[in-house]
Amino acid sequence: MSQISRGLENVFIKTTALTYIDGDNGILRYGGFDIDDLVEHTSFEEVIHLMLYGDLPTKVQLQRLKTSLNEAYEIPQQVIDTIYSLPRESDAIGMMETAFSALSSIYGEMWNKNTNKETAIKLIAKASTVTANVLRAKEGKKPVIPESSDSFARSFLSASFARTPTNDEVKAMDAALILYADHEVPASTTAALVTSSTLSDMYSCVVAALAALKGPLHGGAAEEAFKQFLEIGEPERTEEWFKKKILEEKSRLMGFGHRVYKTYDPRAKIFKRYAQKLSERSNEARKYFEIALKVEELGIEKFAEKHIYPNTDFFSGVVFYSLGFPVYMFTSLFALSRTLGWTAHVIEYVEDQHRLIRPRALYIGPLKREVIPIELRG
Amino acid sequence: MSQISRGLENVFIKTTALTYIDGDNGILRYGGFDIDDLVEHTSFEEVIHLMLYGDLPTKVQLQRLKTSLNEAYEIPQQVIDTIYSLPRESDAIGMMETAFSALSSIYGEMWNKNTNKETAIKLIAKASTVTANVLRAKEGKKPVIPESSDSFARSFLSASFARTPTNDEVKAMDAALILYADHEVPASTTAALVTSSTLSDMYSCVVAALAALKGPLHGGAAEEAFKQFLEIGEPERTEEWFKKKILEEKSRLMGFGHRVYKTYDPRAKIFKRYAQKLSERSNEARKYFEIALKVEELGIEKFAEKHIYPNTDFFSGVVFYSLGFPVYMFTSLFALSRTLGWTAHVIEYVEDQHRLIRPRALYIGPLKREVIPIELRG
Ligand SMILES: CC(C)(COP(=O)(O)OP(=O)(O)OC[C@H]1O[C@@H](n2cnc3c(N)ncnc32)[C@H](O)[C@@H]1OP(=O)(O)O)[C@@H](O)C(=O)NCCC(=O)NCCS
Ligand SMILES: CC(C)(COP(=O)(O)OP(=O)(O)OC[C@H]1O[C@@H](n2cnc3c(N)ncnc32)[C@H](O)[C@@H]1OP(=O)(O)O)[C@@H](O)C(=O)NCCC(=O)NCCS
Repeated sequence: MSQISRGLENVFIKTTALTYIDGDNGILRYGGFDIDDLVEHTSFEEVIHLMLYGDLPTKVQLQRLKTSLNEAYEIPQQVIDTIYSLPRESDAIGMMETAFSALSSIYGEMWNKNTNKETAIKLIAKASTVTANVLRAKEGKKPVIPESSDSFARSFLSASFARTPTNDEVKAMDAALILYADHEVPASTTAALVTSSTLSDMYSCVVAALAALKGPLHGGAAEEAFKQFLEIGEPERTEEWFKKKILEEKSRLMGFGHRVYKTYDPRAKIFKRYAQKLSERSNEARKYFEIALKVEELGIEKFAEKHIYPNTDFFSGVVFYSLGFPVYMFTSLFALSRTLGWTAHVIEYVEDQHRLIRPRALYIGPLKREVIPIELRG
Repeated sequence: MSQISRGLENVFIKTTALTYIDGDNGILRYGGFDIDDLVEHTSFEEVIHLMLYGDLPTKVQLQRLKTSLNEAYEIPQQVIDTIYSLPRESDAIGMMETAFSALSSIYGEMWNKNTNKETAIKLIAKASTVTANVLRAKEGKKPVIPESSDSFARSFLSASFARTPTNDEVKAMDAALILYADHEVPASTTAALVTSSTLSDMYSCVVAALAALKGPLHGGAAEEAFKQFLEIGEPERTEEWFKKKILEEKSRLMGFGHRVYKTYDPRAKIFKRYAQKLSERSNEARKYFEIALKVEELGIEKFAEKHIYPNTDFFSGVVFYSLGFPVYMFTSLFALSRTLGWTAHVIEYVEDQHRLIRPRALYIGPLKREVIPIELRG
């Protein structure tokens, strides 16, 4: 079946000015800026501006963008009700899917070059509200709308936990938002692009992306990776676990491996630094970070020769856990950040290179057959 | 940009034993059976069996399948509530997206070779319930669960309109369900496949597919095509409309053109037959059928040399309209039927040829840039 592009590997679906990945050398850049520099010197809001308008903002532009975000946190009461009407045990990303579908059915706007970017900014703000309320609904807390502040990360953390976050927490959340903001065209972004190609609305593009992100081979991996650390439970049990699960049972090591990176994921390095720092704040978190370090060592020892290394989801869970998020929220936090990449890519696609995405399948089924009517079929 | 596979044209994303299209000769077969024969001699339930189990059912198998469908119409009360909580003006497919997202967040099951096909059958039954209730919610009628009957089409029509449909109506609905059941890998099915490739759950695959279907270049075209006939209003205004809209303003003629068919879509021929027959029942419907015939003639005259002909969505609207459905439901009716193709394709993909779908994008943005911190940025 040499005609089949399995997993669409090395098929180029579009051009982009958003994100550059050098998978062999472990380089990731947004709009030409190294991911390390962006995390060190900018905020998520600046990255929003970069992705949507092609450059980092001036002070005035940044202020305007923050105002737009602050003004867009509100979502219709029905959507809040919808989130709260779902059983508390529901899957968190499934709840986000539901909320965004509801937003789509209510807002679903036409594409328009003059308003697409503003629509994206509003959508990102509303994603903060949706994510915080998914957490709160699942925890049995009452709904909130994020409040205006000088920082998207701060407003989100305040709304999620109904307390004032420390500056360290805000910085870590902001870093996570930057690190997950875009990654060229993984499965979720591809689902969004396919959706945009029929000229479906932007909210529906995000719905499709969420549906794809959910899987354990993609965004679901942050939760799966951390669940391994929970299962191990104590640092000294790591080696035994690794031997049994990975070497003997040949389970995939979650948080390792990547279609594009054939070396250490540059985001994983940064998440590791934040994980180390934040996990110092509690014994539990420190323990899971220690376990992660041991799993990492064993994983690299085993898989480096196959060019399989930690990916972005390997340490992010320790960061989110240290910030106080339940494990079931990790994929949703990834999603919150990635709403930026999804919307920026679909805008690029629809505005500048639109065409209906319609691949083919190779037919290998039965040749022509005649229908025998059911009466005669036995 | 010769490296870009624009619209993934001629990229083969998978193999399939489900559907064969010969776009040059206008041939469509499911599992080797010509679409005409299937519509003439089988029911939608038989096609469900064909797609999921590889052959038309025996009498006993068919009875078992009907029982499974009849037993699965129930959906959780929260999902009904969710549909009804949305504003009545919401987009119908958006409401279906919301309902399926809610079902996903509640049911979201793991893939399992032993149960995937039963999951698909249940999902198709629940799609009937969701579709009927989207209509009823938008019409301000109270919710219903379809009742058991000898026919999926009959149960659906009874639930939708709360009256006993005639046999002619049931046959037309059944034909529409067969005609829309699958079409290889259009955008919606591609979105479903991308979603399944991350091992996200089957309901989420359908959510992604719905999001993509919604666009006017894909499933939305049935509504758009019919809206043209509404806009024309009277048969004798057709020529003037065509001249202005299509020839002068160069609007796309909706319900015409196809990535794969370069000739008359075989489904359009069958829909045309049903449209003719059913539209005889009312003056309004007959008028729109007449308008459709005139638009068809002018469209073929203009576009045949570009190999652009009526597609499946051109006449389907007249059938749905004659059955009593509001125009806003046409895409949802397409969706109801296509839940079969979506689930059958993702099962094929996950069970036999699974791989994460992860294409690439070609970076054309700025080369490496240094971050100037915001304080110095002006
Ligand atoms: C992400 C992922 C799907 C990309 O892989 P891919 O390009 O599709 O590669 P394949 O699935 O074809 O795997 C290639 C080989 O590497 C192995 N491999 C890949 N990732 C592995 C992992 N995490 N653990 C163990 N083996 C792995 C496969 O078993 C396969 O081995 P084989 O050639 O001996 O059969 C894969 O690395 C994975 O499943 N990782 C775990 C989930 C995860 O962390 N996802 C988040 C990504 S950001
Ligand atoms: C379905 C569709 C998107 C497939 O087209 P595609 O393979 O992506 O083809 P393109 O959009 O690249 O169009 C190719 C050419 O045909 C023209 N064309 C295609 N469909 C057309 C239509 N319905 N009316 C007028 N012109 C049409 C395009 O304008 C283009 O012309 P150009 O080469 O002179 O610029 C397209 O035919 C369409 O938009 N049809 C109307 C919507 C519809 O009915 N969709 C339902 C499909 S089942």
